[in-house]
Amino acid sequence: MTDTADFEPTPEGWLTEAELSAVRTRLPILYVDAVPVRVDESGDVIAVGLLLRVNGVGEMTRALVSGRVMYHERVRDALLRHLEKDLGPVALPQIPAAPQPFTVAEYLPTPGITPYHDPRQHAVALAYVVPVAGDCEPQQDALELTWLTPEEACAEHVQREMTDGHAYLLRQAMAHVGRMA
Amino acid sequence: MTDTADFEPTPEGWLTEAELSAVRTRLPILYVDAVPVRVDESGDVIAVGLLLRVNGVGEMTRALVSGRVMYHERVRDALLRHLEKDLGPVALPQIPAAPQPFTVAEYLPTPGITPYHDPRQHAVALAYVVPVAGDCEPQQDALELTWLTPEEACAEHVQREMTDGHAYLLRQAMAHVGRMA
Amino acid sequence: MTDTADFEPTPEGWLTEAELSAVRTRLPILYVDAVPVRVDESGDVIAVGLLLRVNGVGEMTRALVSGRVMYHERVRDALLRHLEKDLGPVALPQIPAAPQPFTVAEYLPTPGITPYHDPRQHAVALAYVVPVAGDCEPQQDALELTWLTPEEACAEHVQREMTDGHAYLLRQAMAHVGRMA
Amino acid sequence: MTDTADFEPTPEGWLTEAELSAVRTRLPILYVDAVPVRVDESGDVIAVGLLLRVNGVGEMTRALVSGRVMYHERVRDALLRHLEKDLGPVALPQIPAAPQPFTVAEYLPTPGITPYHDPRQHAVALAYVVPVAGDCEPQQDALELTWLTPEEACAEHVQREMTDGHAYLLRQAMAHVGRMA
Repeated sequence: MTDTADFEPTPEGWLTEAELSAVRTRLPILYVDAVPVRVDESGDVIAVGLLLRVNGVGEMTRALVSGRVMYHERVRDALLRHLEKDLGPVALPQIPAAPQPFTVAEYLPTPGITPYHDPRQHAVALAYVVPVAGDCEPQQDALELTWLTPEEACAEHVQREMTDGHAYLLRQAMAHVGRMA
Repeated sequence: MTDTADFEPTPEGWLTEAELSAVRTRLPILYVDAVPVRVDESGDVIAVGLLLRVNGVGEMTRALVSGRVMYHERVRDALLRHLEKDLGPVALPQIPAAPQPFTVAEYLPTPGITPYHDPRQHAVALAYVVPVAGDCEPQQDALELTWLTPEEACAEHVQREMTDGHAYLLRQAMAHVGRMA
Repeated sequence: MTDTADFEPTPEGWLTEAELSAVRTRLPILYVDAVPVRVDESGDVIAVGLLLRVNGVGEMTRALVSGRVMYHERVRDALLRHLEKDLGPVALPQIPAAPQPFTVAEYLPTPGITPYHDPRQHAVALAYVVPVAGDCEPQQDALELTWLTPEEACAEHVQREMTDGHAYLLRQAMAHVGRMA
Repeated sequence: MTDTADFEPTPEGWLTEAELSAVRTRLPILYVDAVPVRVDESGDVIAVGLLLRVNGVGEMTRALVSGRVMYHERVRDALLRHLEKDLGPVALPQIPAAPQPFTVAEYLPTPGITPYHDPRQHAVALAYVVPVAGDCEPQQDALELTWLTPEEACAEHVQREMTDGHAYLLRQAMAHVGRMA
């Protein structure tokens, strides 16, 4: 899990990075995870967007859109903020009308308890499949946004380039939309 | 429940209206019900689209988009077909990526067993909230498509202009998106 | 897809087998599919129940619980009826309080359009994961009910003993409960 | 929103009440909300359980089961813990197999942004309908657990005895199970 959109000047009442570090080992932190997709006019998923980054040890990694929900921020606004931060201002994400996520991903610092893992913290992510209709441009630390077919995105060599949690969540998302490989 | 889009020339393998009448009292008939909505960029529902019609006895009635799933037709294609038939070809409905409905509405010929009722048949409708982004024009037998706020749409005088089943389903949809009055 | 529970004397208003055959190629037929599971006290799935049968050509096959919704029958009553028919009268299935299925499985007579296929008909199944708390005994044509861990149930050799549609639906169910292999 | 079950001796790594107060105005706090229900054998909701308490100013109030998710605690374990704390050790709650909530309730310290409100904090609650099969005894600060029909529970005089957020969430839950008044 990589926070990609929390580096803006901290508004009043939000946590500083130092304070955030302190609570990260004391409280579950609320996240949103989004699987960006292209759909056809019947809503069928035809492609999945994965962010390509270079991690701290120089490896290529692929990731979903993911980030923290801020204090006093609605879940739907957090979703929009993270999608625009990662995919650019004209991605035109179609934020779901209903807050019901397709699943809840529980990233625990201890591996093996759930299928998700985050060594830094206990994060609980509300997960959504989000169609994006506009032009996407990777922002910030992402090198590229790659559109893969659902089958390609679930292929083993692609899954290996994702953290275990995101690889698992992506396959759950494809199961949910009926496009699991 | 009013079928608004089943009067096209019957393709091979589909039921004629006569055959349909015969099975209507013998088998549950599969429907899709759609609640057309306008959303803001955060996905929040700002308006609900209701079709205004004059019924057989000259009363004004309001309805959701509703229609039968045909033989060999996918649910998502039936949704698209009925939305385009009722709202026009440039309504640009955003058909959900996942087939999971927000509820299943069971219209029984006997009133009182479920909150839905259809004297003609036992219809089981997969119900979806569908954002529409384009221009809507009422088609066929509808006089008008009215956009109401969620609060207006749930108001008693509007609810009274809908069949009981659609009034109930609309309120369920608003509960699902967090905009129940 | 195997109907396991539709052979009772036909009550008034239900279809005879002959009539059913006639409409099967003209109308989508409404089904319920249930994935029977054992859960621990936290609701975590610890085992999946699969029915073992011998098919028409003498092969062992495994199946989920599946069957038709009858005329004037509620979906929840159809679920209970099919689970009791297949698992016995003291299985104590916990029918979901809400009608929202985890997915909708569309079995088309033409393979390849959806992940599900039924050469006999176009069936649309509302799919539910159903915890069963009591003693299960295979009924009717089933030889055995086998409880497998989610991982075993998703293993390739088990998946091969299921029809493609049920194998796929089982993996979707495990993705939904967070126990996908 | 009332925390009913967070007063146990704080295990290592959990927040003290003082620390919790400090972060409550800086970070959304993750909760689970449960609507306890009695169901019949078809899963139909026949009664809703509401906790009766006396609040700080001596008024009778009714509440759903609600409480915080602790650090390193799974959502399903938090649900079980809070249900057992409020309803007693032999309530036998049927924790859902899937983590997908029926909605997400966002309690903001500022009223009017969402239908939920909590002056103390920004709490985000994953909301579940949970059938309970065993004997329930109110625990701790609750005077009584009252079982009401869905219609009674949604009646205006009962709704007025609940905080706005819980009254709204209860009606959403009843909409979800098809038992909205």
